[in-house]
Amino acid sequence: MNKLFASISALVLLSVSCGLSQQPEKKKYQDVADSIIAGALRSGQAYQILSELSVGIGHRLSGSPEAEKAVEWAKNKMKEYGFDNVRLEPVTVPHWVRGKVEKASILSSSSSGELPLRISALGGSIGTPVEGITAEVVEVKSFEELRALGTKAAGKIIFFNRPFDRTKVNTFEGYSGAVNQRGGGAVEAAKVGGVAALVRSMTPRLDDSPHTGAMNYVDSIPKVPAAAISTMGANALSELLAKEKNVRVRLKLSCEKLEDVESANVVGELRGTEKPEEVVLIGAHLDSWDIGQGAHDDGAGCAHVIEALRLLHDFGFRPKRTIRVVLFANEENGLRGGKAYAAKKRPGEKHIAALETDAGGFTPRGFGISADSLVFDKLASWSYLFASIEADRFRKGGGGADIAELARQGVPAIGLNVDRHRYFDYHHSENDTMDKVNERELELGAAAIAILAYIIAQEGI
Amino acid sequence: MNKLFASISALVLLSVSCGLSQQPEKKKYQDVADSIIAGALRSGQAYQILSELSVGIGHRLSGSPEAEKAVEWAKNKMKEYGFDNVRLEPVTVPHWVRGKVEKASILSSSSSGELPLRISALGGSIGTPVEGITAEVVEVKSFEELRALGTKAAGKIIFFNRPFDRTKVNTFEGYSGAVNQRGGGAVEAAKVGGVAALVRSMTPRLDDSPHTGAMNYVDSIPKVPAAAISTMGANALSELLAKEKNVRVRLKLSCEKLEDVESANVVGELRGTEKPEEVVLIGAHLDSWDIGQGAHDDGAGCAHVIEALRLLHDFGFRPKRTIRVVLFANEENGLRGGKAYAAKKRPGEKHIAALETDAGGFTPRGFGISADSLVFDKLASWSYLFASIEADRFRKGGGGADIAELARQGVPAIGLNVDRHRYFDYHHSENDTMDKVNERELELGAAAIAILAYIIAQEGI
Repeated sequence: MNKLFASISALVLLSVSCGLSQQPEKKKYQDVADSIIAGALRSGQAYQILSELSVGIGHRLSGSPEAEKAVEWAKNKMKEYGFDNVRLEPVTVPHWVRGKVEKASILSSSSSGELPLRISALGGSIGTPVEGITAEVVEVKSFEELRALGTKAAGKIIFFNRPFDRTKVNTFEGYSGAVNQRGGGAVEAAKVGGVAALVRSMTPRLDDSPHTGAMNYVDSIPKVPAAAISTMGANALSELLAKEKNVRVRLKLSCEKLEDVESANVVGELRGTEKPEEVVLIGAHLDSWDIGQGAHDDGAGCAHVIEALRLLHDFGFRPKRTIRVVLFANEENGLRGGKAYAAKKRPGEKHIAALETDAGGFTPRGFGISADSLVFDKLASWSYLFASIEADRFRKGGGGADIAELARQGVPAIGLNVDRHRYFDYHHSENDTMDKVNERELELGAAAIAILAYIIAQEGI
Repeated sequence: MNKLFASISALVLLSVSCGLSQQPEKKKYQDVADSIIAGALRSGQAYQILSELSVGIGHRLSGSPEAEKAVEWAKNKMKEYGFDNVRLEPVTVPHWVRGKVEKASILSSSSSGELPLRISALGGSIGTPVEGITAEVVEVKSFEELRALGTKAAGKIIFFNRPFDRTKVNTFEGYSGAVNQRGGGAVEAAKVGGVAALVRSMTPRLDDSPHTGAMNYVDSIPKVPAAAISTMGANALSELLAKEKNVRVRLKLSCEKLEDVESANVVGELRGTEKPEEVVLIGAHLDSWDIGQGAHDDGAGCAHVIEALRLLHDFGFRPKRTIRVVLFANEENGLRGGKAYAAKKRPGEKHIAALETDAGGFTPRGFGISADSLVFDKLASWSYLFASIEADRFRKGGGGADIAELARQGVPAIGLNVDRHRYFDYHHSENDTMDKVNERELELGAAAIAILAYIIAQEGI
C-alpha cells in the first residue's frame, strides 16, 4: 500500500471517531478506557515483561530450576512495580523430567538405513528400556478403530493419526477433537497389548516440530511410553504404512517422574480502597512445557495480568475493590496451583469475579463469561468500552483451567478471548518463542484486562 | 492451556452454534458462506499461491525482470485454474533501480572510526555523486521546524525524525501522521538548501531494518537524494546529535531512474451467466518494493483475489454477474496500473462494485465501503454471513489506491479490512517475507472476499 491511499483511509477513520467524540455526553468510563489504551500503546511494558520471563528465564516446567527462577522473578517484578501484599502461596507440584535420550527412527524394508523421526515424549510418560522399544507400527484414527483390531494390536506400537480438523474456524474445536489421542492414547494402546503410543501432533499446521502435552495413566492398566511426532513425520509414516508391510519404529526415551517438589502461586494486588475484602482475580499460569520458551502459553498471559495491574497502578487508578494478580503454578501437568488457590481458606474475603488469560498474546477480541445471565448482561453492557480496539465481543461460556475450581464454587469466571488462528501453530512446541509475539497485540490484551478488572472493581457484580 | 479446559471451552462454543443451527430457517446465503469458509480451511490454496509469488519469484518492483516474471506467472496461474478471459492489459510503468551502492556511516568526534548506519534509498531518489555526500546533520520533527531553521539548514543533511505515533489504535493513522516526511522530505530539504534527506522509517516497531517507500520531486526545486534509516538507527543518531556538535553522515547511493518500460495488469474472470456485462472487480497489486518478498504488501492481496475466484470456480458457484480479478501493475511508485485500468474504454460494460485488498494477509475483520448510504446498507445487511469468522464489521469509508479512479467515476469501492497491528512491522522492509504470513489468516481473507463478491454478483447493487 502506498502513502496517499493510507492517508485517505486514516482520515476517513479519523472523521468517524471525531463524529463520535462530538456527542454531547461521553459514556461512563470512556475516558478511563481511552486513557488506559493510549497509555498502554505509548509506554506499555508487557513485551519487556514477557521478554524477561520467556527469553531471560526460558521454558519452566513444574519442578524444574527454571520454574523456581520464574517464581522468584515474578515476586520481585510485582514488588518492583509497587503492588500490594506481594507473596508466595505454597503449592506442591509434580516433577517429570524429559531426560537426555529422546530418539526415534523408522525401519522399513525400502530404505537401507533407519529414517530419523522427530519426537517429543508426552509429559508424564514413562521411559523405555535403555535399549529402546522396537516394534511394528499399526496406525489408527480412533480408539474404536484400535479396539476393533483386537489381538492384531498386541506387541505393536500404536500410531494415533487422527488429524486436527483444520475446517473448524475456532481452532480450539479442532484441538479438542484430536487431543484425546494424546491424553488417553497410552492407556488405550496398553489395553489391547500395545507396547507404546506415537501420537500425531495437535496442530493445524504442517511442520516438523513435535508438539508435546500432558498424558495420563490409569492405575489398573500397564504403563507404556508415549511420544508426539510432528505432522510431517506423521504423514510420512502414514504413507509408508500404506505402501509397505512390517514397518517398524525404534523408540528410546529416558523421561521419568521424580518426587514432587515445593513451588508456589505468586500473588500481588492493588488493595481496594472501599471494599478490600471483595476480590477481582486476574490470573495466568507461570509454568510452561519444557521446549520452546512458553511465550504464548502462557508467558503472554503472565505479561497480560502483571501489565494490567501495572497500568492501573502507574496511571493512578486506585480501585474500590481489590484487584489481585495470581500467577498459578502447574497448569500444564496437574492444575495443582489452581486447586491449591481455591482450596485455601481466606476468611472474610469474597471473590466477585475471576478472569484468566491462557490463549496466547494475540489481538484481543473480547471476553467469554461463565456466570448468571444478569451478571453476563451487566458485564456485556460495558462492551462499548472495548469497541475502539475491536475487543467488544462478549460471549457466554468461558473462563480458564486455573479458575475452574473457583467457578465451581460460584465465582463468575471470565476468559480473555484473542485471535485464535496462530495459537496451535506454536502451542507446546519449540516454536512457542518470543519472536512469535507482537508487541502491540500483547499490550492491547493487557489493556483490555485492566479496563474490565477496574470496572468490576468499581461497580461490583 | 491444557487439554481439559480447551475441550470444555470448545464444547461451550459448539453448543452455542448448535443452538443457532436449530433455528427453523437459515438466513439467505448462509449455506454458501459456510461452505466457502469450510472448503477454504480444508483445501485452500492461498498460501501456496503466495509462496509461488513471494518465494518463487520474490520482490518485484515495477520495471524489474521479477515484475515481468510475476505478470507471466499470474497469467499462467489464472489459466491453470480455468478462469475465463485471462489476459494482459498493457501498462507503461516507471523503472527506478536501487543500484549496487547503498551505504551510510556516522562520523563523530567521540568515535575513532565511522559508525555504519543501515539505510534504504527511497523509491524515486536520485543517487549521490560517486564519492558520496558527507555533511553535517540537522534533526527536525516537522517541515515547520525545518523552515524555522532558515539558513542554518543550508549545506546540511536534513534528518526527519518525527516518530510513527504508536498510541493510535489504527496503525494506518500512525503511518499517515509520519509519512509526509518520506514523500516530501527531499523537496523540503532542498528548499532550505539541504543536500540530502534522511528519514526515520515509518514503523511503530524498534528494529534495525530501514523501511523504504515512494518519495517525490517537484520540477522547480533541486533534486537531492533521500534514504530511510531504521528506527534504531534514528534513535542512535538522535542521541548522538543531542550530545555532540558537528555530527556528520557520509551517504553513497547509486540509485537512478531509467526509461519507462512496458508491463501489464493481469486480468481473469468468472463470466456472469445472466448479466455478464455487469462486473464485480476484486483487485490487488502485483508489484512490490525491491526488498523483502512483498509478502504482506501485496502478495497477500494477490493470493486473496486469485484464491477467492478459484474457490468460487472449484466449488461450482457460477455467478449471475461477472466477477473479475485484476492484479494491478505499479501501485507502489506510480499507480499507473490503476489509472490505465480506469482509463480503458470498455463499451457495454459496467462496474457495479470494486474491491481491493492491500493491507496484508492478516485475520479479516470486515469491509470498509465508500458508496451511497443505501448501497452501504445493502452490503452491511449481509454482515451476518461473516460473523462466524468475526469479519462482520462493515464500516463507512474505504477502498484502495488502485480502484480510487474507479471510485471517482462513481463505482462503489470496498476495501478488505484486516487486523492492523503487524502490517507496519514488515511494510516496505526486508522483513516483509512469507514466514510472517499465517496460512489460516490468509485463507480466511480470500474466503471473505469470495463470499462478498459472489453475493454482489448474485444480487446486484
